[in-house]
Amino acid sequence: MNDKLLVLGTMAYDAIESPFGKTGKILGGCATYIGLAASKFKTSCGLVSIIGGDFKKAHLKLLKSNGLDLSGVDCLSGEKTFFWSGKYHNDLNLRTTIDTQLNVLNKFKPKVPDNFKDSSIVLLGNLDPNLQGEVLNQMSDPSLIIMDTMNFWIDSYRDKLDEVISKVDVFSLNDEEARQITRTHSLVEAAQKLHAMGPSYVIIKKGEHGALLFNGKKIFCAPALPLEEVFDPTGAGDSFIGGFAGYLSQCGRITFEEMKTATVMGSAMASFTVQKFGTESLEAITPERLKQRIQAFKSLTKFEIELT
Amino acid sequence: MNDKLLVLGTMAYDAIESPFGKTGKILGGCATYIGLAASKFKTSCGLVSIIGGDFKKAHLKLLKSNGLDLSGVDCLSGEKTFFWSGKYHNDLNLRTTIDTQLNVLNKFKPKVPDNFKDSSIVLLGNLDPNLQGEVLNQMSDPSLIIMDTMNFWIDSYRDKLDEVISKVDVFSLNDEEARQITRTHSLVEAAQKLHAMGPSYVIIKKGEHGALLFNGKKIFCAPALPLEEVFDPTGAGDSFIGGFAGYLSQCGRITFEEMKTATVMGSAMASFTVQKFGTESLEAITPERLKQRIQAFKSLTKFEIELT
Repeated sequence: MNDKLLVLGTMAYDAIESPFGKTGKILGGCATYIGLAASKFKTSCGLVSIIGGDFKKAHLKLLKSNGLDLSGVDCLSGEKTFFWSGKYHNDLNLRTTIDTQLNVLNKFKPKVPDNFKDSSIVLLGNLDPNLQGEVLNQMSDPSLIIMDTMNFWIDSYRDKLDEVISKVDVFSLNDEEARQITRTHSLVEAAQKLHAMGPSYVIIKKGEHGALLFNGKKIFCAPALPLEEVFDPTGAGDSFIGGFAGYLSQCGRITFEEMKTATVMGSAMASFTVQKFGTESLEAITPERLKQRIQAFKSLTKFEIELT
Repeated sequence: MNDKLLVLGTMAYDAIESPFGKTGKILGGCATYIGLAASKFKTSCGLVSIIGGDFKKAHLKLLKSNGLDLSGVDCLSGEKTFFWSGKYHNDLNLRTTIDTQLNVLNKFKPKVPDNFKDSSIVLLGNLDPNLQGEVLNQMSDPSLIIMDTMNFWIDSYRDKLDEVISKVDVFSLNDEEARQITRTHSLVEAAQKLHAMGPSYVIIKKGEHGALLFNGKKIFCAPALPLEEVFDPTGAGDSFIGGFAGYLSQCGRITFEEMKTATVMGSAMASFTVQKFGTESLEAITPERLKQRIQAFKSLTKFEIELT
């Protein structure tokens, strides 16, 4: 395995309202969150995405300074960057989209840079499954293909979605989406049905309740860190899968044991993201802070039992 | 600490309907579930409850054969046992009460047997807080007082409930109830408010998402075992707290570390209970099955991380 991680996803501007406040246009998009989370690990991470002429130089600089390769990011200078605005309600589990302006996304033809075609890990962020498929076709022979999705694609692009799912190794989605796609309430049963669609690893994200990693009969349960205040859930799932992939890229081995650790790393990244609006908290992660947080996850779950 | 565990709670007949089937009148009640779960550990457990003349000898025999002391169970031979019937909906999280017949419960004057007044652990099961208070008044000097409650008592008996809460060491309730009682969405914040009401340990049960144990700044997260099929959630919370108390009674030490293990033991008991209707699965637990289940919890949560 090489240390290259190729990420497909959106780069965007978001405007977010939560019970804790309201932002102006801030940096967003799944590739942004994934890339920033992955960049906390030793990996050569390249983004494939598209932006408009309004995308700020400071934001490009931020991503580059985190070691992200942007040679796969197309820029349509006469157009505008993808924009999303949404509002979270009191319990933060309910989200209403206020506005979606696809802008440059309408013309997105993802192109994997030559030097990333041999990446050992490909991460297909939450996006049109047709684009996910196009990126897969450009890769030479990845060791691990990870895919994230969301309800919109399940509703409207089911055939293409199923085709891409059949080709991936790790499929990540949330509990409601797992139930929606499999028409099954039990998550254990849902995971089995998702396995049958192709992926040998299934990750079901449960928000504040953590995440479940399935590999056939093996199950691992990563908790979410109980937090006093969650400011903004935007990007939590992307940060999760970015941390997951970044860790696997760094460790260079892909076993169930490594996946377990990767799941905890992903949960740690998500726990940072939700503590501030946008990418602010993710940007501020230092190796020391990450270490402390992982320690918190350890003490949260570790128990000793001697059975007589 | 002695090995005595005094349990206050109901003994009942239930009729349950779930998407998986329908029962006739079966053995139920929180004291029954708590007692059966606690009896899997080395403890001298006595129940304080009330039954009617219709309570079957076979059921008394079952409880006794599990080592439970029933000298604190009052029997009003001319009356009927407490009866509850309810229906679970498709996702098993929603439950509708079809019928509640308090019967003997209307005349319940709990009386702690003399030889259980010095019990080291008292467990006040989900019941009228006035009765919980009466039992506390009869105890000499317990090392640990554990209390369970539910939404009904929060709605209608708030003052008395608060009074009892102020006297207990461990307060167990579910996430919705924690939010209801504290008017706080964040469970971390809710736990702090509950601490401020008296209990130094707070357990927030989250059903299929496990349970959180709080002790000031310390948090432990016990997962629920992901199960393929949940037949009947009745008694899961009672089995949880029964296993929790039974384990603490057996180990004879009360520290945060022991509480963590006790929380896992409780989760294990709950995981058995929901797999069959009523107490059937709880009755069938053997030391070997318990060992296997605890092993499953271990592998569900254990991960190794080396941070450089």
